[in-house]
Amino acid sequence: MTSASVRELLRLPAGPVDLSTLDSRGTPGFDGGKKEAKEELPELGPELADLQEKLFAEGYTDGTRRVLLVLQGMDTSGKGGVLSHVVGLLDPSGMHLKSFKKPTEEELAHDFLWRIERDVPAAGQVGIFDRSHYEDVLVVKVHQLAPAAEVERRYGAINDFEKRLAETGTTIVKCFLHISKETQKERLLARLDDPTKQWKFKPGDVDERGFWDEYQAAYTTALERCNTDVAPWYVIPSGRKWYRNWAIGQLLLEHLRGLDLDWPAPDYDVAEQRARLEKEQ
Amino acid sequence: MTSASVRELLRLPAGPVDLSTLDSRGTPGFDGGKKEAKEELPELGPELADLQEKLFAEGYTDGTRRVLLVLQGMDTSGKGGVLSHVVGLLDPSGMHLKSFKKPTEEELAHDFLWRIERDVPAAGQVGIFDRSHYEDVLVVKVHQLAPAAEVERRYGAINDFEKRLAETGTTIVKCFLHISKETQKERLLARLDDPTKQWKFKPGDVDERGFWDEYQAAYTTALERCNTDVAPWYVIPSGRKWYRNWAIGQLLLEHLRGLDLDWPAPDYDVAEQRARLEKEQ
Repeated sequence: MTSASVRELLRLPAGPVDLSTLDSRGTPGFDGGKKEAKEELPELGPELADLQEKLFAEGYTDGTRRVLLVLQGMDTSGKGGVLSHVVGLLDPSGMHLKSFKKPTEEELAHDFLWRIERDVPAAGQVGIFDRSHYEDVLVVKVHQLAPAAEVERRYGAINDFEKRLAETGTTIVKCFLHISKETQKERLLARLDDPTKQWKFKPGDVDERGFWDEYQAAYTTALERCNTDVAPWYVIPSGRKWYRNWAIGQLLLEHLRGLDLDWPAPDYDVAEQRARLEKEQ
Repeated sequence: MTSASVRELLRLPAGPVDLSTLDSRGTPGFDGGKKEAKEELPELGPELADLQEKLFAEGYTDGTRRVLLVLQGMDTSGKGGVLSHVVGLLDPSGMHLKSFKKPTEEELAHDFLWRIERDVPAAGQVGIFDRSHYEDVLVVKVHQLAPAAEVERRYGAINDFEKRLAETGTTIVKCFLHISKETQKERLLARLDDPTKQWKFKPGDVDERGFWDEYQAAYTTALERCNTDVAPWYVIPSGRKWYRNWAIGQLLLEHLRGLDLDWPAPDYDVAEQRARLEKEQ
């Protein structure tokens, strides 16, 4: 079903960004429909797990490489769905998932990257950020939770931080889950109508929706200013859940394939160890 | 395929323990073989995920309940396999996995439970300990890494700690993955013979195997002295990987079922929120 590389198709080009011109319901790189995507996604699982285990094995021996998947998007864009359906395909052993919430008093008493640093993936791990340091130039900007000059400072600080992560072996995959305002409305209504989903809804979600345009503007600036070669943004059309999940699974797979992973050679003499084991009881 | 409750069948009875009399290759509660178990395990997934999401939803609203699965066992007993095949069935969102390694200098400068406390599951989470505070009465005892009186003190400290966790809403499920010395030898040899598994082997594994009897004695004491009603031990016959995985999946499921979980009722007026959403753009 796959044609061109999703990595190329969804890569945000350098330069000015206009979210209103980016299709939120497209299916770039996928020729089938919902049924095919739902069948094909779990089929990525074995190769994802195999590559992830090789990365873990590399980290277990002497490697330093790691992967960081960053998930950002408006409420209902599907971060939780990606965790269940895509991140759920990974082996829990080699995974480090961090869901960033509203910062604590202690976290606020430090620079915004302090709490982020503590949860970057270790060697061999695939890290997943459900929300991230980008909240510090999104919700913080929209609600003016920090002075404008401080928000302004953060774009450069983020680029420096991500550059350092990349230089020390981290493959960074930043995904913006793009939906329309109309899609959000449909999904919030669907939550209200479904007793198994009502718990996910908060009245504050409707208040936040009142700031839709301000959030889109803040995303636009973050996407434009933090779209570097070492930490590029991918814009994931997320109006169709099945495409969103498939695309992020595929994107992660393509990045893992790009690492040319292999099983590490043993740093001991296999025959000698075999003999030791055979000798004893 | 299931007959009696695995929870009852595998529960370690109170009183003296003799590991040599416990079958490590039995399949209590499962009437089929390898093929059936491998088919049945993933079929537990949807119910596990459903109950886990209900627990998460409860924690997201005002609940305090949580679950802690503790995995202990000799090298090659299959802790990693349980993570891949059983824990991998859970939704990453509501899961907190901690793999305890050799303690750091900082950790050693505190009481042994200091680092454990930091990784107990939060409300709504299923926590998984891959190794745990039991290492502090196992490897520590075998290699005399702490004075005998300190090790002796720890059994009571563990019981107090686990009682506190239980009192504050934690369902504790402690699994001892029981294998024979012969099985360990076979599995270590299999690692040496498989280039995709050689990275898991360390020459030190053979040295540790030299302390097999001391480890079994230390496990015996830990199983006897920390087998309480609020935090019972389950002895999982782990000589057959397929049974071990199925049994732990089933045990977790039975414990989640026992919590009588349900979707939390909304703490807002659904019709009112619907009207707010419909009114706006």
